[in-house]
Amino acid sequence: MTKIGLQTIKLDSAPYILETSSIVGPKEAEGPLAKYFDQCLEDEFWGEKTWEKAESKIIKENVSALVAKSGIASTDIDYCFAGDLLNQCISSSFGLRETNIPFFGIFGACSTFAEGMCLGSTFVDSHAARNVICATSSHFCSAEKQFRFPLELGNQRPQSAQWTVTGSGAVILSNSNLGKPCPRITYVTPGKIVDMGVKDANNMGAAMAPAALDTLVTHFKDTGRKPSYYDAIITGDLGYVGKEILTELAETKGYNIKNNYDDCGVLIFDKEMQDTHSGGSGCGCIATVFSGYFYQMLKEKKINKLLLIATGALMNSTSSQQGESIPGIAHAVAIENLDN
Amino acid sequence: MTKIGLQTIKLDSAPYILETSSIVGPKEAEGPLAKYFDQCLEDEFWGEKTWEKAESKIIKENVSALVAKSGIASTDIDYCFAGDLLNQCISSSFGLRETNIPFFGIFGACSTFAEGMCLGSTFVDSHAARNVICATSSHFCSAEKQFRFPLELGNQRPQSAQWTVTGSGAVILSNSNLGKPCPRITYVTPGKIVDMGVKDANNMGAAMAPAALDTLVTHFKDTGRKPSYYDAIITGDLGYVGKEILTELAETKGYNIKNNYDDCGVLIFDKEMQDTHSGGSGCGCIATVFSGYFYQMLKEKKINKLLLIATGALMNSTSSQQGESIPGIAHAVAIENLDN
Repeated sequence: MTKIGLQTIKLDSAPYILETSSIVGPKEAEGPLAKYFDQCLEDEFWGEKTWEKAESKIIKENVSALVAKSGIASTDIDYCFAGDLLNQCISSSFGLRETNIPFFGIFGACSTFAEGMCLGSTFVDSHAARNVICATSSHFCSAEKQFRFPLELGNQRPQSAQWTVTGSGAVILSNSNLGKPCPRITYVTPGKIVDMGVKDANNMGAAMAPAALDTLVTHFKDTGRKPSYYDAIITGDLGYVGKEILTELAETKGYNIKNNYDDCGVLIFDKEMQDTHSGGSGCGCIATVFSGYFYQMLKEKKINKLLLIATGALMNSTSSQQGESIPGIAHAVAIENLDN
Repeated sequence: MTKIGLQTIKLDSAPYILETSSIVGPKEAEGPLAKYFDQCLEDEFWGEKTWEKAESKIIKENVSALVAKSGIASTDIDYCFAGDLLNQCISSSFGLRETNIPFFGIFGACSTFAEGMCLGSTFVDSHAARNVICATSSHFCSAEKQFRFPLELGNQRPQSAQWTVTGSGAVILSNSNLGKPCPRITYVTPGKIVDMGVKDANNMGAAMAPAALDTLVTHFKDTGRKPSYYDAIITGDLGYVGKEILTELAETKGYNIKNNYDDCGVLIFDKEMQDTHSGGSGCGCIATVFSGYFYQMLKEKKINKLLLIATGALMNSTSSQQGESIPGIAHAVAIENLDN
């Protein structure tokens, strides 16, 4: 473990991403990445009476499936880092209350998945843990109800709005690869809160892009790497609007990311066919797209060096009503195949 | 860094608690611990227009005061771990958005302060950081508004209800004591989620006591220590009801904590004079009582071995309305003077 530069941690042991698992809702199951997810649900309730209970079930079943796939006993998992968008993170705490694994609740809005990977990989690298789980969830219906309007109202959504992903993604980070090649976490760059004064709660991409830029540039400065080092630079859920802003902002700072940069919110839905405006968002967006699609790409060595940057908007509906701007944050995780 | 037993981490370097700071509201300023707090406010608004903005100001000013007292530059603080009870933890994210310190948002309800110390001390011990800040806040008015009833309604409170502390406590954990004797963190025992089926949102003490028991017993088993090892065993905010339950539950497990156990929710208010029923609660309860009172006791060597256990109730108002029980969690931090 070595702290390098301003805010990056070099993980000397490069913890393994031993296994991943993902469950998504029906809309995500109609999108272009459907075949990469472990399980696709047929409806948003999954047999539960409320959306909140459905979201809890999704993260619960996803973590159970993850442990089952991994080949290690849940008693060998030392800590779980998890969070979600619901008030007081109840999706995670209710969903994971029966795991019997020591639990760190985390909240970084849609940056939570990478926040968990930063914390979890530091724990594994420092021998505080052998294996940890990092998990997040989000749900379109529970998020709309909580942050915006009742779905029954049928409100029209502005073109800059994003569509909260229904789903959960989860990973096991480990000090062992159990003898099989696994992608590894080499560096993490936890981010600062950046608030450029954007107040439009229907334009999260614009609010979060400056935070993504700050973490991106810091990561390159701290590590001495350039954008071209990575096969793919992937943000969490800036969507179409935020992706364009980040690409332009990076260029003004001297970093050309046009050729290898994309965003999970852009990738998860078909913009034309699915009417999702600026793209996907939510804790579950980067979590499912990484756990499903990118992990598979890494395992198949179609990409070997990935910089994953999850972005979050640290506001709530009360802060918007009180005229506050939207602080953003972004955490970066460098994931690499070191075995080839 | 050594993992010992089921869920305890031995911090080989025993990070220093270099400095603390606390700000409390007017009711806490009338309580028995008033003289130990760094700053006592005269009203709940502190010049702000809303309670949420006041709470953000409290954590902001408290962290500023902490850094100023510590004698180290804010640029030497590598990471901040912070959280609060407001939806999406906006007190912390708005309050600390201008610190320019990489930020990990955490949520463990009223266990958040000890959760931050578990994470922060692990980061310092593993050389991922030189100095970190751990901070939390809560506010009586913003919490009542969000979790229970509008204050204007003047609802009667049941005797088992607790009074959310208005205040913020914060600490700097460091790899250096800057040449002065400082209490140190020797072990942390992060807790599991424990749900015994309690559904009464006006009896948080009963809901959280089983989680406190689980972490307490695990800490003793993992470390081989007995209750008598510690000069004081202090829980976060079980209040009078939860304190009695934990004392009895511990006895059934063979641990006698009657002589050296107390609770911050019991200590912070005068039960008879202040009409606070079962005592104080909230993220700010253990944070202010530790940062104010217990840190002073440790510095003056009136106590030398303290086991601090913060407890949290991982629910929200929607989960209660949907008939859910209240999952609890507790994280333990062993703090010791090693220099005498």
